[in-house]
Amino acid sequence: MQYIAPLAKLVEQLRALPGIGAKTAVRLAYHVLEMDNDRAQALANAIVEAKAKISYCEICFNLTDSNPCRICAAEARDQSVICVVEEPRDVAAMERTRDFKGRYHVLHGSLSPLEGIGPEEIKIKELLLRLNSEQVSEIIMATNPDVEGEATAMYLAKLLKPLGIKVTRIAHGLPVGGDLEYADEVTLSKALENRREM
Amino acid sequence: MQYIAPLAKLVEQLRALPGIGAKTAVRLAYHVLEMDNDRAQALANAIVEAKAKISYCEICFNLTDSNPCRICAAEARDQSVICVVEEPRDVAAMERTRDFKGRYHVLHGSLSPLEGIGPEEIKIKELLLRLNSEQVSEIIMATNPDVEGEATAMYLAKLLKPLGIKVTRIAHGLPVGGDLEYADEVTLSKALENRREM
Repeated sequence: MQYIAPLAKLVEQLRALPGIGAKTAVRLAYHVLEMDNDRAQALANAIVEAKAKISYCEICFNLTDSNPCRICAAEARDQSVICVVEEPRDVAAMERTRDFKGRYHVLHGSLSPLEGIGPEEIKIKELLLRLNSEQVSEIIMATNPDVEGEATAMYLAKLLKPLGIKVTRIAHGLPVGGDLEYADEVTLSKALENRREM
Repeated sequence: MQYIAPLAKLVEQLRALPGIGAKTAVRLAYHVLEMDNDRAQALANAIVEAKAKISYCEICFNLTDSNPCRICAAEARDQSVICVVEEPRDVAAMERTRDFKGRYHVLHGSLSPLEGIGPEEIKIKELLLRLNSEQVSEIIMATNPDVEGEATAMYLAKLLKPLGIKVTRIAHGLPVGGDLEYADEVTLSKALENRREM
């Protein structure tokens, strides 16, 4: 005997989360048991509701609770510029700069031959389809400044340039090998400002 | 706009957990959204079920899913020794040693005049009530080796000794596998003071 079954189960579930080790999982589980019932229920509900209410926007594939998402539906945003990012959290990071007024396209990954992720595994086809129906003049590549992100940007640039679309890359103001999600707003603003034609 | 409502709510709930900062909460929330539905539901269920199924043992006030708890109900355990600890997680720590065969009493805190925690706020009255119905010959104080834990142990010892019960305190000394060079002065003084013949 170590932990009683419902506690052991909770510890196991928490431990499966990223960055949560064995000791942290136990600590969190005991904290949950010390919460009042309403708080614990609110936490459980937030998990279930987030899963139930959030889906992918049919246009840009960002996370959304309405379809199309608020950014795609916003009349005020520039319809002629699309910013291509790897993950939904990158959209949140870009939005925090308040500098970008266009729309997004979330690839849900980057090309990585080593991990077997090719063009079919990420939302590249969906980006090309958008170009049929939307009047796009510029596509900004805001994939991560790492090997996979660069490769993905290069691949897309080669694909898009023959279509007569200006393809730009956010500047290497970002630390190379870094992660877009954790860039500070000023660095990200600079990177956006210094984008160059590919 | 930063995060859509259900995501913001989940982030807020996760952030309220101990040791989870703003960035970790966001990372965990995105992870939850990427989980499949069954996994997310299992996590939510584990939280709700742990709260619903786990209560305090009516004898020792440890966390339990049966009443009395498995330790209090175990015939094989020594009924004459009670180990007093501060929190349920301390019971789990003691049990991991596999050396203690008696039963426990969980105080749910320690005396802390600064934080307004007096004898009424922790399970001291309940411990005294146990002594009426149980044949106890020894009570081991296993409260934390800090100021509050020491004060609580001293207070209980003064209360229990007149009842003719042997009261003992777990030893202070160097942690096994530790390094003499890095031990703090108080611990080293205690270790020296409590030396025993070999």
